[in-house]
Amino acid sequence: MRVVVPYAAKSPKTRLEPVLTAAERSVFSRAMLADVLRTIVEAGHEPAVVTTAPLDLADLELPGEVATSTSVVVDDRSLTAAVNARLPTDERSDAGGSEDGNGDSNAVAVVMADLALASSSALEALFAAAADVAISPGRAGGTNALVVRHPAFRVDYHGASYLDHRVIASEVGASLETIDSFRLATDVDEPVDLVEVLVHGRETDRAPTCLREFGFELDVRDGRVAVSREESAATE
Amino acid sequence: MRVVVPYAAKSPKTRLEPVLTAAERSVFSRAMLADVLRTIVEAGHEPAVVTTAPLDLADLELPGEVATSTSVVVDDRSLTAAVNARLPTDERSDAGGSEDGNGDSNAVAVVMADLALASSSALEALFAAAADVAISPGRAGGTNALVVRHPAFRVDYHGASYLDHRVIASEVGASLETIDSFRLATDVDEPVDLVEVLVHGRETDRAPTCLREFGFELDVRDGRVAVSREESAATE
Repeated sequence: MRVVVPYAAKSPKTRLEPVLTAAERSVFSRAMLADVLRTIVEAGHEPAVVTTAPLDLADLELPGEVATSTSVVVDDRSLTAAVNARLPTDERSDAGGSEDGNGDSNAVAVVMADLALASSSALEALFAAAADVAISPGRAGGTNALVVRHPAFRVDYHGASYLDHRVIASEVGASLETIDSFRLATDVDEPVDLVEVLVHGRETDRAPTCLREFGFELDVRDGRVAVSREESAATE
Repeated sequence: MRVVVPYAAKSPKTRLEPVLTAAERSVFSRAMLADVLRTIVEAGHEPAVVTTAPLDLADLELPGEVATSTSVVVDDRSLTAAVNARLPTDERSDAGGSEDGNGDSNAVAVVMADLALASSSALEALFAAAADVAISPGRAGGTNALVVRHPAFRVDYHGASYLDHRVIASEVGASLETIDSFRLATDVDEPVDLVEVLVHGRETDRAPTCLREFGFELDVRDGRVAVSREESAATE
């Protein structure tokens, strides 16, 4: 199965501007990307990063097997256009019947680069879904990860994409399954999401390590959980 | 397995005050409770509502089988104290070895009353976990649902309870499993959470129907998804 990981390299994670500088947002977004790539490889697949601007894989300092399994291609179109250009078509189905030897060569998975909590078991559950289209929704109606096996299905990431994708699947006659995963539902967009990275990140993950190096820690006050940052830790 | 559903009957869902009147918050919280009770019964169990103030089950207008399967007890202690009073003890283990005939009579599940998206399959996965303590975390380090099979484990819902519960389990020598579910991770506390109810609620669910009757609908603007409400629909 091809696993596409779209990455907005130019000015990543702008909604984290209240708590991270531009340089920090770039470092943090690449730490999340590295975690997502490693998790995809742990789930037994070879990720293809589709980036809006050139990206040097060496900068990601990926573990050996992850680095050798990962490819990078630049595509500066919109997310929707770049993904649709890589979804299954009848032609690919005709041409590539046995390329990966598991009968699933025409399936394409799309996994967002900011799913810092993604686990290999959650991805495996998504990848194993038998439906023509399988979606792990994000909060607020987003589509955080999906697998497409139907040649007529196309994505539209604008707005409530999870609901739109249900409609699109229905229109083209594709069966649809929703995969229920908190880890895949948690895309890291806003300052409040950093709490999830610190609560659920594993020791071997890069994203929580990155946040701790930036001086962030969990802050429990009045029963609410937030993140706080050492004053001296901010960098320009 | 006993399934405890704590319910704050006195002034439920205060954090929804920006968008719902006190009367509406009461109606909406009871709609969510009714959905949770029905889902627990669908998962094959009999829920026990532990409420901070008297609650007339008839007001919930539960379907027949759900009504006959549900019990109610008033306990005005704190959430933590009320739950701990109902967790397994060695005494209960000695006394009740075969009371429900499935070898799991000493297990106690605790499912929050505001898990409007809970599905029977998600609950079944939680209930089936073999660990001494199984937790479905909520956002911001919360504990939205758990199953306790260890007689020494006790809850502490204050603060980052998911992390605290991991520590407590470790201290008493209880194994712990985390159940990954977006549906169980989504407790409905704040106005932004209403989006999830409208996106993921099923037609047979009471909570989304209640919100639509209040005049709420999804509002997609500039690619972001929120809820909006008809001006005329607010009630006092």
